[in-house]
Amino acid sequence: MSENNSVGIVAPKTAHFSEPLALKGGGVLPQFDLVYETYGTLNADKSNAVLICHALSGHHHVAGKHHESDKYAGWWDNMIGPNKPLDTNKFFVIGLNNIGGCHGSTGPISINPATSQPWGSAFPIITVEDWVNSQARLMDRLGISQLAAVIGGSLGGMQALQWTIAFPGRVRYALVIASAPNLTAQNMAFNEVARQAIITDPEFHGGDYYAHGVVPRRGLRIARMLGHITYLSDDVMGEKFGRKLKDGIKYSFDVEFEMESYLRYQGDKFAGEFDANTYLRMTRALDYYDPALTFGGDLSKALSQTKAKFLVVSFTSDWRFSPARSREIVKALLDNESTVSYAEVTAAHGHDAFLMPDKHYHAILQTYLGSIEVGDAK
Amino acid sequence: MSENNSVGIVAPKTAHFSEPLALKGGGVLPQFDLVYETYGTLNADKSNAVLICHALSGHHHVAGKHHESDKYAGWWDNMIGPNKPLDTNKFFVIGLNNIGGCHGSTGPISINPATSQPWGSAFPIITVEDWVNSQARLMDRLGISQLAAVIGGSLGGMQALQWTIAFPGRVRYALVIASAPNLTAQNMAFNEVARQAIITDPEFHGGDYYAHGVVPRRGLRIARMLGHITYLSDDVMGEKFGRKLKDGIKYSFDVEFEMESYLRYQGDKFAGEFDANTYLRMTRALDYYDPALTFGGDLSKALSQTKAKFLVVSFTSDWRFSPARSREIVKALLDNESTVSYAEVTAAHGHDAFLMPDKHYHAILQTYLGSIEVGDAK
Repeated sequence: MSENNSVGIVAPKTAHFSEPLALKGGGVLPQFDLVYETYGTLNADKSNAVLICHALSGHHHVAGKHHESDKYAGWWDNMIGPNKPLDTNKFFVIGLNNIGGCHGSTGPISINPATSQPWGSAFPIITVEDWVNSQARLMDRLGISQLAAVIGGSLGGMQALQWTIAFPGRVRYALVIASAPNLTAQNMAFNEVARQAIITDPEFHGGDYYAHGVVPRRGLRIARMLGHITYLSDDVMGEKFGRKLKDGIKYSFDVEFEMESYLRYQGDKFAGEFDANTYLRMTRALDYYDPALTFGGDLSKALSQTKAKFLVVSFTSDWRFSPARSREIVKALLDNESTVSYAEVTAAHGHDAFLMPDKHYHAILQTYLGSIEVGDAK
Repeated sequence: MSENNSVGIVAPKTAHFSEPLALKGGGVLPQFDLVYETYGTLNADKSNAVLICHALSGHHHVAGKHHESDKYAGWWDNMIGPNKPLDTNKFFVIGLNNIGGCHGSTGPISINPATSQPWGSAFPIITVEDWVNSQARLMDRLGISQLAAVIGGSLGGMQALQWTIAFPGRVRYALVIASAPNLTAQNMAFNEVARQAIITDPEFHGGDYYAHGVVPRRGLRIARMLGHITYLSDDVMGEKFGRKLKDGIKYSFDVEFEMESYLRYQGDKFAGEFDANTYLRMTRALDYYDPALTFGGDLSKALSQTKAKFLVVSFTSDWRFSPARSREIVKALLDNESTVSYAEVTAAHGHDAFLMPDKHYHAILQTYLGSIEVGDAK
């Protein structure tokens, strides 16, 4: 990737919110921080702001690098920058870490003001609705009354959808990518296995492992290994690894197949970086999101008050958030005569495709985002 | 199920083999026991014997009950009995527990004669080829020079296939059901996650947990929960559980959705019954089986010396052993102008369909097995 279309060196900022946030689950977060980054320039009438909502293991560092020496750029750097599909010459882009996260925003590893200890198990369950409410607070703080667009993939797509339900007047366009109006039973089942791997790890200590100076690394590692299987398509795993051996068959339980090496590496890496309590809460937020539930399961009714225009994108090989689930969203929007475009992208990479620089996928977003009108720069 | 078509009360028998069994992995099993059951009567010319090969968690108790008070019959009781698809009025059916198993045949929980302690980690890795060799010994013992048929589903299907390769003159018909000529990378990946859950359980003790008076129950439970997801289709999980709640949303990590209750129940039950070392070895046998490997990946060549007639059966919703994999076997057999019938059964239940009493599936097996000629009873 050329340096010329990078947002360059960026620095995260922190916004502190001292007013309590009432949570859908009944609890209250007495105060909270949101860590965020911005790329591009907010225009004079503040009509060019685009919010990026992250998925399970994402965060605020979406594009650019923090230091020249950084090995990797932000997690969606292929999408965001000057002349990229989400063009920072035109848009003011905001990425944030959600509450409950482990990348700087208030979460289970943060200090609970009531006890002066890490929140740990006492940190409440957070829902997609809570995230969107907290994100709206950040938009208030930045003086953005209406977003040009909200964009998210997977769990991020659920947040984009929720923005159009909770704040119909505050979002002009919603890009809901590789997402679903709720999880299938199979999807929830994978989450449950991942959570049980963490919770039954002897070093989980009921979620208060910080006090014991340990982390439930084994469980988090298993959770991530499992996740990786479901993010890739069967075909891509076949092409990428197939039955390739590292050094021949040894009749052991050590790494023998390349796929095993990949999974263990990914699991170990993640277990050394990510917070298990955050992982539990992210998966539970996925499980619970179901905007149709209070409308007797009628998604069309749930979306009837939305005012945004929609782009819904799915990927043919995504078996965890299949195209059929995206089409449910499209159908519900059409039932309401909402403006919706739908793209089903032929892509081999499974759920991970939403993060990949697929030519057709990027062209679709470039065209769609290019058509959004924004006010003058000054 | 009517009592009239049950094989009734059955009792397992044990065959001891004192001659060492050389293993594909290089080791030697100095002696071994095979636990088996038989149903029906071996006819005068011993031409009516059918061997049932079990899958990952199966065993020798295939049909009937051990006691009148048994809650459940053998694992394939719906298939085997008087006037059932595998008719015990006609056939002499043999079910056995494979070596490496934990239901009575020699396995990791057996006493290692060299140490007078349980084998544990020292028990060798067993392959599909080893199983078939040990099964042939049992046939020798029973005086059966040629089987009318070998039948197996999943990992059992691999054994049926291997019989036709290793002993082309000893099997007339092979029924290979919901199986594959080798595992896909995705399939091996699920096995690897399951194994890592067991191996990293602190109570695994490198496989020698027997001496510590513990079992790696947490890991085995996770492995089984994961397994259950992959045995069912997405659709069946949706129909069976969907997003149904047990007692409403509580915003917790406890059981809230019915699917969670099901998975935990299945995991707990299995972890209390099955041996972790056996589980590891069964999954490794699955990983390694690949008869085409020594023929440069050419399955047609691997099957070129087979003499059996084949019935290959797959199920449309089976995403772990998909119909495409069964068709690879069919194609390779057709390349050799072997006699093969293929049935792709429209079934909702995923991989588990091979164990279900689906009407069409059972009709296919009833017709096929009905056409096999056997000698007179006496």
